[in-house]
Amino acid sequence: MNKSRLEAFSDGLFAVVITIMVLELNAPFDVTITSLAPLIPVFLSYVLSFVYGAIFWINHHHLLAATRRVNSAVLWANLNFLFWLSLVPFFTSWVDENHWASMPVAAYGAALFMVVFSYRILELVLFRLHDADALIVRILRPGHREKISMVLFLLAIPIAFYQPFVSMLMYIFIAAIWFWPEPGLERALSRKDICKIK
Amino acid sequence: MNKSRLEAFSDGLFAVVITIMVLELNAPFDVTITSLAPLIPVFLSYVLSFVYGAIFWINHHHLLAATRRVNSAVLWANLNFLFWLSLVPFFTSWVDENHWASMPVAAYGAALFMVVFSYRILELVLFRLHDADALIVRILRPGHREKISMVLFLLAIPIAFYQPFVSMLMYIFIAAIWFWPEPGLERALSRKDICKIK
Amino acid sequence: MNKSRLEAFSDGLFAVVITIMVLELNAPFDVTITSLAPLIPVFLSYVLSFVYGAIFWINHHHLLAATRRVNSAVLWANLNFLFWLSLVPFFTSWVDENHWASMPVAAYGAALFMVVFSYRILELVLFRLHDADALIVRILRPGHREKISMVLFLLAIPIAFYQPFVSMLMYIFIAAIWFWPEPGLERALSRKDICKIK
Amino acid sequence: MNKSRLEAFSDGLFAVVITIMVLELNAPFDVTITSLAPLIPVFLSYVLSFVYGAIFWINHHHLLAATRRVNSAVLWANLNFLFWLSLVPFFTSWVDENHWASMPVAAYGAALFMVVFSYRILELVLFRLHDADALIVRILRPGHREKISMVLFLLAIPIAFYQPFVSMLMYIFIAAIWFWPEPGLERALSRKDICKIK
Repeated sequence: MNKSRLEAFSDGLFAVVITIMVLELNAPFDVTITSLAPLIPVFLSYVLSFVYGAIFWINHHHLLAATRRVNSAVLWANLNFLFWLSLVPFFTSWVDENHWASMPVAAYGAALFMVVFSYRILELVLFRLHDADALIVRILRPGHREKISMVLFLLAIPIAFYQPFVSMLMYIFIAAIWFWPEPGLERALSRKDICKIK
Repeated sequence: MNKSRLEAFSDGLFAVVITIMVLELNAPFDVTITSLAPLIPVFLSYVLSFVYGAIFWINHHHLLAATRRVNSAVLWANLNFLFWLSLVPFFTSWVDENHWASMPVAAYGAALFMVVFSYRILELVLFRLHDADALIVRILRPGHREKISMVLFLLAIPIAFYQPFVSMLMYIFIAAIWFWPEPGLERALSRKDICKIK
Repeated sequence: MNKSRLEAFSDGLFAVVITIMVLELNAPFDVTITSLAPLIPVFLSYVLSFVYGAIFWINHHHLLAATRRVNSAVLWANLNFLFWLSLVPFFTSWVDENHWASMPVAAYGAALFMVVFSYRILELVLFRLHDADALIVRILRPGHREKISMVLFLLAIPIAFYQPFVSMLMYIFIAAIWFWPEPGLERALSRKDICKIK
Repeated sequence: MNKSRLEAFSDGLFAVVITIMVLELNAPFDVTITSLAPLIPVFLSYVLSFVYGAIFWINHHHLLAATRRVNSAVLWANLNFLFWLSLVPFFTSWVDENHWASMPVAAYGAALFMVVFSYRILELVLFRLHDADALIVRILRPGHREKISMVLFLLAIPIAFYQPFVSMLMYIFIAAIWFWPEPGLERALSRKDICKIK
């Protein structure tokens, strides 16, 4: 089964999820630079959700670029991942509107945990469609980033009730882990492109 | 006529319809876990409309993957299907905001009936473009799921005025029927992929 | 230059424009069937803008299916067309919220005139890229539907100040003209598909 | 690595960003032509953001049409560009709602500067992937339009505090520079199309 519609539909959902937050940026009726101050939390939540959306779009892009086949299980695993991703803007804005209070920060960590967890499920479902020694399986099977992220999120959630600031730093650190796609994957994809001219 | 734009346009509409509900999830200004309670109906309606959108996206995906040709009649049948699908979020939220009252539950059933009915019309219009013994026609012609769903919806609508809870259970049961695409179709599509390298 | 991105971008814009109106359908807090009554004008304006969007999406689809090349002039003519199309939901809702008053009905006609006019410009810009005896040019050059529509819109605008109801009937009549794509084009596209397997 | 998803995702984001402003056009409840007057600033800001979105969509289209390969750095440079572009509607509406006051006009210039600056970064990242004598590099390396625009924006920002009207004229002038894509690029792309039938 062709993967092009899976990609097109995911791209549409990513585009809507990423830009949803910008709808909440309403121009102030004042003309001073300070009139933008109340918009800063909304703006920050927009930046954060944009960055998280961007990170997962890039990783999703690489994951599917290394994939040859999809089936119904992959379609559902992908929809599950997109569902959790679509909740990130909501939890980001809850955090920002309440100045990093404990409960929103913990809930935010739980939402991000589900994003990474559902992304790992998508990977595992994709592995089952490929040979055990296929390129994608050999590179992504260990899933070090996925496992480290999930452990850190599970630590950050209780920490939020004591030091929410520390939890937020942990979330930024985890984003940094994901910033660059799996390096082995990038190189492997490049190698193939040498002989394949699109 | 090429089917790629039909797919791309449908994917865009699916993506917008699926994520429309998330726009109504506004972060509360309180920081307790109980402050999320009033959002639960909105959240549930988001989950429900996401699941229904996902189910029909997957079935639509398989239906078109098995299709070779499209014409104007197919384009209109597809637009008719997308129109009814786009009304599902509205009726889902009417149900949830009124705690499963009879009239909204009945109206919800009527809307879902139209979604399945218009999907069946799309199938029938596609059949007319293919040979009577084409793969897609042989597998999808009987349409057992479509017919059972439509009968169940027609039963659930009057039941809603006596036991709306029973009608809701029927809707969830019908969703479960559609969860997995037509199994014969899945296998047939896989067979073809063996000899076709994308 | 490849036309695939022109199509993809247009499809995204069509999808957003078509579904914008559904955002204004908010579920009532009452559970009687009469509580839906105030939503009827919003619903009707959604149906109307969906139908107009659908009509022009199908015609746009056929027009580009018959096209081989695009250039910057085509991209701009297409953006101009999409701009006017994106204003249709606004004018439709102005008409419906004011029960078919003269001024909104006239303004609606002017907006639809601009949609057809900018669509004709897009056709003319496309013709200049093709041989005078190319398939697309021979079939679409006369533009009977475009010319009849534009004349009818120009008549309907002054009529709206005396009999807005008559103008609305004219708009529905014009939509009916466009419902089915240019029949010669449909057949010509089908012929080519016989020898081209996607 | 294939560039098709980069294009599809960008198209989705462009489509949403361009049409976001139309959501703020709410039909008035009055039926006189003067009742549209308060909507004029919103309408103008829609036109302006549509034109800026259109200009950068066309330039982005040509840039990627001349590109053969992409990598993670390109994906991030593209996301950075889309982020700044997505802020343009916000700043446009701040300008229009305050009748061209100094601070909003200056902020608008700063936002547009970032759009052009991030677009230039995207170009430079793409160059590094290609041979020094590749088509795209030879034509786009000088980047006269990018450099002139950035200098003009940096001049327009302080001018806004004395003569905001002059700054606005400068913004319109810069838009005009970008209206037509790099002419050498257009011709080069056309030449290749002669031997490549899509």
